[in-house]
Amino acid sequence: MNQQRIRIGYHVAVPSGHSAESQLRAVAREQTVELPAGCYPPEFERTIVGQVESLEEEAEGLWRATVSYDPDLVGGSVPQLLNLLYGNVSFQPGVEVVALHLPPSLLERYPGPRFGLARIRALAPQAAGRPLVVSAAKPVGLGVADLAARCEALALGGVDLIKDDHGVMGQAWAPFPERVPRCAEAVERANRATGRASCYLPNVTGPIDGLEERLSVTRAAGCRGVLVSPFLMGLEVLTRIGDAHDLFVMAHPTFGGAMVQRGRGIAPDVLLGRVLRLLGADAVIFLAPGGRFPISEEETDALVTSLREPWESVAPALPVAGGGVTPGRVRDWVARHGVESALLVGGGLYQQGDLEAAARRLVEAVEEASRG
Amino acid sequence: MNQQRIRIGYHVAVPSGHSAESQLRAVAREQTVELPAGCYPPEFERTIVGQVESLEEEAEGLWRATVSYDPDLVGGSVPQLLNLLYGNVSFQPGVEVVALHLPPSLLERYPGPRFGLARIRALAPQAAGRPLVVSAAKPVGLGVADLAARCEALALGGVDLIKDDHGVMGQAWAPFPERVPRCAEAVERANRATGRASCYLPNVTGPIDGLEERLSVTRAAGCRGVLVSPFLMGLEVLTRIGDAHDLFVMAHPTFGGAMVQRGRGIAPDVLLGRVLRLLGADAVIFLAPGGRFPISEEETDALVTSLREPWESVAPALPVAGGGVTPGRVRDWVARHGVESALLVGGGLYQQGDLEAAARRLVEAVEEASRG
Repeated sequence: MNQQRIRIGYHVAVPSGHSAESQLRAVAREQTVELPAGCYPPEFERTIVGQVESLEEEAEGLWRATVSYDPDLVGGSVPQLLNLLYGNVSFQPGVEVVALHLPPSLLERYPGPRFGLARIRALAPQAAGRPLVVSAAKPVGLGVADLAARCEALALGGVDLIKDDHGVMGQAWAPFPERVPRCAEAVERANRATGRASCYLPNVTGPIDGLEERLSVTRAAGCRGVLVSPFLMGLEVLTRIGDAHDLFVMAHPTFGGAMVQRGRGIAPDVLLGRVLRLLGADAVIFLAPGGRFPISEEETDALVTSLREPWESVAPALPVAGGGVTPGRVRDWVARHGVESALLVGGGLYQQGDLEAAARRLVEAVEEASRG
Repeated sequence: MNQQRIRIGYHVAVPSGHSAESQLRAVAREQTVELPAGCYPPEFERTIVGQVESLEEEAEGLWRATVSYDPDLVGGSVPQLLNLLYGNVSFQPGVEVVALHLPPSLLERYPGPRFGLARIRALAPQAAGRPLVVSAAKPVGLGVADLAARCEALALGGVDLIKDDHGVMGQAWAPFPERVPRCAEAVERANRATGRASCYLPNVTGPIDGLEERLSVTRAAGCRGVLVSPFLMGLEVLTRIGDAHDLFVMAHPTFGGAMVQRGRGIAPDVLLGRVLRLLGADAVIFLAPGGRFPISEEETDALVTSLREPWESVAPALPVAGGGVTPGRVRDWVARHGVESALLVGGGLYQQGDLEAAARRLVEAVEEASRG
């Protein structure tokens, strides 16, 4: 197989009596020439439309296929990558993108994680040997003082990464330019008391025009990382934060859920794993199984693998399991995914009333589970 | 009902034995405080979480509900609007957003169409009394000369709006700075021959950093409008094109398909209708029923209505029906949707071989159908 071409893996539902090969060719045309066969130069059939590299029936009527494409269709452009990956076929039920291989020549044209798992870990040495613990200052509607107090309580309790809630953006209740220095100070105050190095991650999601200003405010406040929601802002935002600002990027998947369902869309390990990692996410939040969203252990395994596995020059990213993670499920997580990951617990701490004490119990539970 | 609040309509699947009211409250919490009840100030239950305004069972286990929210959650921000509309619930199967009402105070904070249906029509006076005819120069992979020749043939045949194919972006085969002036010249040359006013719409989709430059090239080439794919670039891109550049914006839905399926996601009339129109799309391409994508007549009716109906200060947008429209279906379209719309035919023209002659037959068919 030619390693210099893009390869996209599909699951395609093929009605009985139809040719899987024809259906795959139709998908490949839809994603490239968007014309019926015969309406373009004949050599495009091999070059631009792409080549069906493999095709097999996995189950009755469900085919797994790989199509390879010319990397010049994508260049180094984010919109061109997304369009080839899942453009017009997004309107076609029964087509799911399940794999993405990019040649090294293309990988070099996207930033990948600048910090990655290892450099985030280095910022929080207290978490050596166990998963990082992540929580959020919330809810939206609180003022700056209340959010800063929650940041401080979480830091005093030992939470490593304390992010703004993804719903806390530019609302007037806690404006970004006031919120960020106050929350950063609160975490620093706690760090002086505990001797730890908790990080506060402002949510820089908002209008593109103000992004540079928000990143400057973030840096001026001494923060080392940010939260951003790429599906709200456009995925390319991930490429625009890291280098210039020396900030690590934690990506939140809000608004992206309908794209990662089963049997349609893009498999979570491809979209939240490969794509977000390639574009520059140092850490990716996803929904853990057993929480309040339906996701399987197998999907989670694949996603965690796609974030951490070796991938040419692209640094490993930190998997952040959230969405209803409870303190009681920590041991299972560590047993299955090891310590090179992070656990995001929000509601599970707030429900206990005393936020600092709840955070402390969670960190102890994570430490305990990691020793076992 | 309080017209000063945001109202979002949902279809929610409620398993038997569960309370629909509780499930709706859970959706409203997920979209706002993202905390279990009891973990936030009690007054937030009414203010920040929102109020269930109506709730009725439409079919066995399928409920229709309206929840109203504080407009300050959204402000004038695109990411805040999208997050409230369909943030974390995007990961919840069985929740579909089916309506969106915004108070006038919020509507004023988004640009809406600057040209809208009426000013696009005014640019193409030859199309008075009939739907506009739209086609595309394609496929990706061709060089500038070949694409310009196709533009010229389509303009000579009488096509009103000739766009780049949505897959033709920044590829090296036809670089934007060379392609746009050449294609614009080709259409102008045809206009001098025909006496018509066909418009060439460059596809400005690409990296955000180059957007201003691409818009400048577009204006310098004398173009009056552009094509853009908001789901590839982030929906906010729609707010950034119109005013400063005096260009109308045609939005292409590529990459957005998984968000508008039935029973999950955002209904097409809300996402491709209300939201894209509000953010600044003067024209919106969508998939017509009977083409190569599955979409119902009812969904199309709702979408066309949402683009054209009176909506406070927001100008009507032009519905552009594509995705496998064939010349043979023109009469049905006009009978059902009238002439204040546009028909996008791509493959259906290319399949006929002589592009200019095929375009001429299509325009004649549209004129004929519009005479009644």
